[in-house]
Amino acid sequence: MFPLPRNQTLILAISGGPDSIFLLDKIAQVQNRNNLKIIIAHLNHQIRGTESDKDELFVIKTAKKYQIPFEVKKINVPEYAKKYKLNLEQAARNARYAFLSEIAEKNSAKYILTAHHQDDNIETVLFKFFRGCNLKSLTGMSQKQNISVIYNEKIYHANILRPLLNTQKKEILDYLRKNKIKFCIDKSNFDTKLKRNFLRHNLIPQIEQINPEFNKKFPKTIENFSLIENFIQQEIKKWLKLNFKKSSFPMDLFNLLHPYIRQEIIKNLFYKFSPHEELSSTHIQNILDLINKKKSNTKKEFGKKHFLKILNKKVCIISIAIHQK
Amino acid sequence: MFPLPRNQTLILAISGGPDSIFLLDKIAQVQNRNNLKIIIAHLNHQIRGTESDKDELFVIKTAKKYQIPFEVKKINVPEYAKKYKLNLEQAARNARYAFLSEIAEKNSAKYILTAHHQDDNIETVLFKFFRGCNLKSLTGMSQKQNISVIYNEKIYHANILRPLLNTQKKEILDYLRKNKIKFCIDKSNFDTKLKRNFLRHNLIPQIEQINPEFNKKFPKTIENFSLIENFIQQEIKKWLKLNFKKSSFPMDLFNLLHPYIRQEIIKNLFYKFSPHEELSSTHIQNILDLINKKKSNTKKEFGKKHFLKILNKKVCIISIAIHQK
Repeated sequence: MFPLPRNQTLILAISGGPDSIFLLDKIAQVQNRNNLKIIIAHLNHQIRGTESDKDELFVIKTAKKYQIPFEVKKINVPEYAKKYKLNLEQAARNARYAFLSEIAEKNSAKYILTAHHQDDNIETVLFKFFRGCNLKSLTGMSQKQNISVIYNEKIYHANILRPLLNTQKKEILDYLRKNKIKFCIDKSNFDTKLKRNFLRHNLIPQIEQINPEFNKKFPKTIENFSLIENFIQQEIKKWLKLNFKKSSFPMDLFNLLHPYIRQEIIKNLFYKFSPHEELSSTHIQNILDLINKKKSNTKKEFGKKHFLKILNKKVCIISIAIHQK
Repeated sequence: MFPLPRNQTLILAISGGPDSIFLLDKIAQVQNRNNLKIIIAHLNHQIRGTESDKDELFVIKTAKKYQIPFEVKKINVPEYAKKYKLNLEQAARNARYAFLSEIAEKNSAKYILTAHHQDDNIETVLFKFFRGCNLKSLTGMSQKQNISVIYNEKIYHANILRPLLNTQKKEILDYLRKNKIKFCIDKSNFDTKLKRNFLRHNLIPQIEQINPEFNKKFPKTIENFSLIENFIQQEIKKWLKLNFKKSSFPMDLFNLLHPYIRQEIIKNLFYKFSPHEELSSTHIQNILDLINKKKSNTKKEFGKKHFLKILNKKVCIISIAIHQK
């Protein structure tokens, strides 16, 4: 576990599974020493019927045992997913982070702690890698991250800490077994019809046949790719700081940049102006082509509320609202 | 196939398997149009006993059928591997490229063509990825590459072209079947005890269960990582051109660089001065630590024939031979 904060109120996201119970037990041990106020938060997604209700009761019982205040909430995620046409996983994620963010705000807590561990991180990276990925996907989860989700048409921000990101699942299970600490078992984790479980239970053990040290060495690979991504984002920020002024940048200087950096600058600006919208690689290519053609007065959609226009050898990002005034 | 050279002598590396026979058939079709002189080269590795001899006979027969000159050679690779303590795959590779390079030199041929295809490239990248990889490993094979190998204590250079790198194995097999073209079958390709075959026959089909479009989309991932690697190498070359003079660079400017770039510059210089030696990540870290400490007159081994020394706020690479004069 990386050094934990001191003198803070922390929200612990507890599902009742082994990882989150391990996190709870470890945090409870340092609670006084680090002068921490802890609140357990559990969302009952109502995805697994009576099983979900049992988990909720288990979390309440555990919170009482550890004498830690708790917040629980039931949300009918399957219904919410249906209403907004989201897949169940995405819907559960949005509902969970919205709930955690609300609890954090109510308690003036700076951080929400989740129990994502090293094996989760490896799976996440592999999953994205097999789906066809970019550099960012290979950097895995961060120990600190600000997540924003849209839930029921409202935007929520959650300031996440992941203290177990360098802890192996094996360590977690060994510790719980050794200390006879109870936890819930989510049977759906063993259903290999679900792609994530197929990856965990079938694929990763076979990758270990190719390289028995895979689980040990892969975190180093992830770290290396994080370093590269960090360098590239630093270069982009430097360039933007120097050249992006009054919502525009000089076209000629931009066209001198390496193709990869051009593409990443467009992405960076797009998500700055339209943080909750989607940008396809075709759209990026169209924008780059437009800038490369150097035709004045041509324009291109840049999210729902902005467009990009070439004016006096500058590439300008213009708000539709301002333009219509 | 990418545009083939014109007015050249080309060496075709032909094993007799489907990929190389496909390459031979395709090149033979454009031979006159592109004014190409073609020479078939086949190395009998003597790894699979009588099977290897049968393949050699098949290649000779095929060359005669196509009326193309050929060169064949027998090398006892298992014996050579034993003598130099190499694994069989590495030994076969060295022997093959040394042989191809000799044939190319004898015939004043600029290029050697190999039949590596898209599926080979995907496997190569995955294999390295599972072993624990760096950015370079994710860029796969290049369409043009200069390979140098050491064989029997002599260095050989081979200028390789891979015209099939964007061709799928499926296309190759479909074409051969449709045109009733014969080829050899290497039974050892189906032995899944060999890790490479296990990857091909067991793992990749399972990755396709996670993403049925994996084989179609992964080349795009490889292309994207090649673009990133290209950008980074370009940055490093720019920095070295500006700052690496008289075998030294200013320590203070170096220490201002991003950690990833520092590491890559050390690698780049190491392989420039010691192209056939190994550089471990611990060794890189030790060198970076040394430069960071800014202690004058400290030195560090930099391959067998050079060392790195800090002198007058400069990092100098010094040849041991010159130093001893």
